[in-house]
Amino acid sequence: MANAFYGQSGGPAAVFNSTAVAVIETAREYPGIFDRVYVGRNGILGALHENLIDITDESAESLNALAHTPGAAFGSCRHKLQNPNVEHDEYQRLIDVFQAHDIRFFFYNGGGDSQDTTRKIAHAAELVGYDLTCIGIPKTIDNNLPATDCCPGFGSAAKYVAVSALEASFDVASMHQTSTKVFVMEVMGRQNGWIAAASALACDERGLGPDIVLVPEIAFEREKFLEKVKQVVAKKGFCVVVTAEGIRDSDGNYLSVVETQDAFGHGQLGGVAPRLVEDIKTAFNYKCHWSVCDYLQRAARHIASQTDIDQARAVGKAAVEYAVKGLQSVMPAIVRTQSVPYQWHIEPVHISQVVGGEKNMPRQYMSKDGFRLTQAGRDYFAPLIAGEAYPPYEAGLPHYSSHRFRLVERKLPEYFGGTTQRRIAEPV
Amino acid sequence: MANAFYGQSGGPAAVFNSTAVAVIETAREYPGIFDRVYVGRNGILGALHENLIDITDESAESLNALAHTPGAAFGSCRHKLQNPNVEHDEYQRLIDVFQAHDIRFFFYNGGGDSQDTTRKIAHAAELVGYDLTCIGIPKTIDNNLPATDCCPGFGSAAKYVAVSALEASFDVASMHQTSTKVFVMEVMGRQNGWIAAASALACDERGLGPDIVLVPEIAFEREKFLEKVKQVVAKKGFCVVVTAEGIRDSDGNYLSVVETQDAFGHGQLGGVAPRLVEDIKTAFNYKCHWSVCDYLQRAARHIASQTDIDQARAVGKAAVEYAVKGLQSVMPAIVRTQSVPYQWHIEPVHISQVVGGEKNMPRQYMSKDGFRLTQAGRDYFAPLIAGEAYPPYEAGLPHYSSHRFRLVERKLPEYFGGTTQRRIAEPV
Repeated sequence: MANAFYGQSGGPAAVFNSTAVAVIETAREYPGIFDRVYVGRNGILGALHENLIDITDESAESLNALAHTPGAAFGSCRHKLQNPNVEHDEYQRLIDVFQAHDIRFFFYNGGGDSQDTTRKIAHAAELVGYDLTCIGIPKTIDNNLPATDCCPGFGSAAKYVAVSALEASFDVASMHQTSTKVFVMEVMGRQNGWIAAASALACDERGLGPDIVLVPEIAFEREKFLEKVKQVVAKKGFCVVVTAEGIRDSDGNYLSVVETQDAFGHGQLGGVAPRLVEDIKTAFNYKCHWSVCDYLQRAARHIASQTDIDQARAVGKAAVEYAVKGLQSVMPAIVRTQSVPYQWHIEPVHISQVVGGEKNMPRQYMSKDGFRLTQAGRDYFAPLIAGEAYPPYEAGLPHYSSHRFRLVERKLPEYFGGTTQRRIAEPV
Repeated sequence: MANAFYGQSGGPAAVFNSTAVAVIETAREYPGIFDRVYVGRNGILGALHENLIDITDESAESLNALAHTPGAAFGSCRHKLQNPNVEHDEYQRLIDVFQAHDIRFFFYNGGGDSQDTTRKIAHAAELVGYDLTCIGIPKTIDNNLPATDCCPGFGSAAKYVAVSALEASFDVASMHQTSTKVFVMEVMGRQNGWIAAASALACDERGLGPDIVLVPEIAFEREKFLEKVKQVVAKKGFCVVVTAEGIRDSDGNYLSVVETQDAFGHGQLGGVAPRLVEDIKTAFNYKCHWSVCDYLQRAARHIASQTDIDQARAVGKAAVEYAVKGLQSVMPAIVRTQSVPYQWHIEPVHISQVVGGEKNMPRQYMSKDGFRLTQAGRDYFAPLIAGEAYPPYEAGLPHYSSHRFRLVERKLPEYFGGTTQRRIAEPV
């Protein structure tokens, strides 16, 4: 019998806490294996600084409330661990903390960088002969992890953007005759178009939803794009565009990158949507509107996908069961066996299959001209947004939990190394 | 027995069609008074161009589907009627169309400019001795109509921004230690801070929701704002800002106005949120994120307020009943008799009380420093977002109606006057 550590890492998601709760609940089902379940405050930083929450005896009521709360209930972080070939003090500290609290199970929940953290820690523990079962758990709204069909967090972001694009298209359709002709909605996706493409689930034969989708995997050609906008406006009177934030031209240059400075020396105020709108206005003088979803799309628990929640729970449960079975350095992956009707299950994949790679959206999910979702794309995305899972409401607002957890007493001296919070390079 | 005309005007709202359906259903309850109910395609433009939809026999199923669909199902418009002291041909044409179709009841649904349309038409009909009962019906997410406690459309927009600000605050709280410190969310409101202020309903003693709200009614002071951001970040580690698009400095200059051109000669890409973020970054070098809600906030039927829907239906019903009673040139206003528990009813006000004015948010709804909602503000806003009213879903998306209605046969020659669609001056 030993203790377990669980940490949340990377950008939050609407269903992040569903996974956390599944880990905690499943661990409780094995009292002969897990004594205490500790959660790191702010992920791996919680382990480094011995900021541990003992969640073992948390009430079912509290956990239920957590499960339908967006964000990362225990705090998340972006912290890139040292290069183990160069520095070792962070790893030594982690092992010290784990040893001090008899932690023999390490569960780490996040995207690609977080899986890398798990891999590094497993390696470090092995090197020093510390027995530590390490299990990665997937989560990223970017949906770009290799070796899994999709990622928890993505389905809810996809549902949010599809619903938003659908609703916006009704708005623009309503008065394009005397007002806005083009609406541009910007969604997340620095490297991949998964989220942007999913918004096109709102398209149907009625001409609603986005008319044009722009994804980073397909080089942005300004003239071709403007021509398409013009065609759509000529045909139906208005045009709805959804763009990923990370679209690039054929030389690989981001459209959103600061290119110039204004007269005050300010960098240009980013955002791809206003940039596209500027181009459209300049070309055609159409009245345009634009929105930038930003964090709203990944925090929107109010419109979460039930499928996403089911999968978020399933990976949490499977992670603990893998540990119980003695698997090492694996991640529960979502395997799709059928799209219509949707069938899936969870299987372990070795974490080395997940780290380092990034899964782009297949080209065949987009039409030849690069602007529309194909049936293959629709088949992939559709099941991931299926089902509604409303949080409870109180006085007109979702009743989200914001419990502050108490930290367990520290057993080690304060840690001063690794306090420089090295941020994983991330475009602003 | 005669026919009725109903038109939708101005920016759409999540509950616009609820009012339309209430008008149609209520008119059917008086078959001895209303023969046919015609709806103008694109509001008053439908009357001018004789683009009329006969909605009288529309199925209950179709109307029910319409009632939970965002946008303006029959098309809306921004069309400023002629100055009746200078030009008359539009009014003559309208009377011609009304006469040709035996229209003796005119219902017009919209904001301040739309009420002005109703007033002008009533005046024109009176001048030429054409018997026409004119009733205005309120709708505007801006909530700025005088003589009514609130406006249909506002409550749902308010609920959307409060939920979004709440959810975003969970996201930012989750990883401010190693990532974003300040999040700025931009909402609508050129002249008034009603929507921005309502987002602060998400604030509570737990430190969630927006920390700072910026409204147009209170002059923006950059230094004071930056100081407040700094204080909030110092105290709780992160700061969530909600700003109305129309905030101005003490000289009345909009922050969002294009001030400069970049090296390519493009105007600066607007949006107040990125502008504020630029200031914050320059001052403190905090990592910031921003979002612009734009149309999403007024189209978000998926998170509509039940109170708003109830009131949207109530004003539609009352409008028809006022016409039946023989009232002239009135608008059903929402009267609040109590905030806790919320009590309201509908009363007629003369349309001259509504036209021309604009209702700013009372100063006492905001704290002395201008950044927070007071209890008085909370008491006003809270009931307006109460209750959820989810649309039905199909395959993960709201099942919205996009029925195309057939136009009735024209009786008059085509109209060529008034085709210059004079747009009501509106900042882009």
